[in-house]
Amino acid sequence: MNKLLIVGTVAFDAIETPFGKTDKILGGAATYIGLSASFFNIKSAIVSVVGEDFPEAYLDLLRNKNIDISGVEVVKGGKTFFWSGRYHNDLNSRDTLDTQLNVLADFQPKVPADYTDADVVMLGNLHPIVQSSVLDQMTTRPKLVVLDTMNFWMDCALPELLDVMKRVDVITINDEEARQLSGEYSLVKAAAKIHTMGPKYVVIKKGEHGALLFHDKDVFFAPALPLEEVFDPTGAGDTFAGGFSGFIAQSENISFGNMKNAIVYGSNLASFCVEEFGTQRMERLEKHEVLSRLQQFKALTQFDIALQD
Amino acid sequence: MNKLLIVGTVAFDAIETPFGKTDKILGGAATYIGLSASFFNIKSAIVSVVGEDFPEAYLDLLRNKNIDISGVEVVKGGKTFFWSGRYHNDLNSRDTLDTQLNVLADFQPKVPADYTDADVVMLGNLHPIVQSSVLDQMTTRPKLVVLDTMNFWMDCALPELLDVMKRVDVITINDEEARQLSGEYSLVKAAAKIHTMGPKYVVIKKGEHGALLFHDKDVFFAPALPLEEVFDPTGAGDTFAGGFSGFIAQSENISFGNMKNAIVYGSNLASFCVEEFGTQRMERLEKHEVLSRLQQFKALTQFDIALQD
Repeated sequence: MNKLLIVGTVAFDAIETPFGKTDKILGGAATYIGLSASFFNIKSAIVSVVGEDFPEAYLDLLRNKNIDISGVEVVKGGKTFFWSGRYHNDLNSRDTLDTQLNVLADFQPKVPADYTDADVVMLGNLHPIVQSSVLDQMTTRPKLVVLDTMNFWMDCALPELLDVMKRVDVITINDEEARQLSGEYSLVKAAAKIHTMGPKYVVIKKGEHGALLFHDKDVFFAPALPLEEVFDPTGAGDTFAGGFSGFIAQSENISFGNMKNAIVYGSNLASFCVEEFGTQRMERLEKHEVLSRLQQFKALTQFDIALQD
Repeated sequence: MNKLLIVGTVAFDAIETPFGKTDKILGGAATYIGLSASFFNIKSAIVSVVGEDFPEAYLDLLRNKNIDISGVEVVKGGKTFFWSGRYHNDLNSRDTLDTQLNVLADFQPKVPADYTDADVVMLGNLHPIVQSSVLDQMTTRPKLVVLDTMNFWMDCALPELLDVMKRVDVITINDEEARQLSGEYSLVKAAAKIHTMGPKYVVIKKGEHGALLFHDKDVFFAPALPLEEVFDPTGAGDTFAGGFSGFIAQSENISFGNMKNAIVYGSNLASFCVEEFGTQRMERLEKHEVLSRLQQFKALTQFDIALQD
């Protein structure tokens, strides 16, 4: 069975949307990536750090999804990373209300021995030095390395980000971040410029407007599923990344054609994530629901048009 | 050969974008619809009005595309409708700088006798009373009536708009207008509500983010082609509507499956329109370019994914 190594935060989130608010609930990039990737027939492990305040029940939740969490360090006396945010009425933008790094401040990732030869590495949003440190620990070059990052690191750790970008195959970022990183407004031009920074594949996430995959002159687009209601967008991008990397790990095929399928699976899984607060929907998501929604994605996007004179 | 009847403005536009500005150039909804629909193997006619100041060369341009303009009234001593606008840097929004109704203020549309039995009627953006008046003149019920409108009529002539909506099969509006008309933020909910106002098919145009087609529980989505540069978005929505209605008129098939194809053709033609100022690109567009871009749309959206256990 192919192996997917996930690095990223395992954390507490407190979320406000127009539909309600939560106290501290389970969150973090690696959590969402792991839950999403658990739908594939692969072995997966998370490398992360939490404090002593992190509930055993949350760890059990990950274990029960067959995720290896031996690489999740529990810091004695430490407090878990905490993020709190409030979404605006259109759910397309949000304000960060609070960020407490806590144990994340001194995080030194340790890749479990069984995963130093992972087939696919998914570097979730974290300091680029931490992302690089994970790659340093790999004993064989993974078949695919996927990097997720955000504007915060472009502002505060650009040299380190540019370093790790040279070592990855795929980067996933949102449209505004692609513009910031490249200095280009056109996403086509932005992707071309980001290619020159390292990643052969550039995935630009546009939230409710779908996702684009660029590879040289090839482009593929998958829409987000039009939903009656988006309840909470938290974790949608990570869930997308988990679906993408999980599907690639399972199929062990890094052709452009198969990456299209990975983008569709990522969009599919993300469409569930936003239906409820936090990880709730992903926790009880069943495989038959994912397959049924895949049919919806086909109906939504596939057409049969003949060329005409 | 099937007949498409187009009603809408034939006008002067003056446009400012971050890339430059134009003096008075050829514009108007019916102009863009007509140019776009001219790529199909159909007969088409425009019903509109211009002033004596309207250059014969512009009328020749339409004639040379085999568009019947016997229904374009030229008002002696009258001045042609004029619109002037400035696009913001992101090209997603614009300010109207000037609107001079001129001959449009007293426009009484007259459908040419040869087109009172048109197969498809495309009601371009105009006062809903003018749109209704065109339908009143039809001697046989068209196979498909498509209505385009805008927020201006929702603000100033809502009862008349609701009247004409009851008489059409398809409505095309943009996302903000769909929200305004329905009072629903979710586009899925908005489309469902607009269905109840008359149109069995609701097309929501999202500009650079593509277009959605709703019919009962069916949804189809076509992206806009990712372009290196969008030069001038003026007329893109009308070009989309022209491609949609022209394709339906040619194929004479109003199944949902064929409407998907019409949406793709609309998106295809609109992707050319925005490449240059005003109607420039559409004037010299050739059929082989449209067919070649159709292949790009297939590559952009089509995937081949198998269901898995």
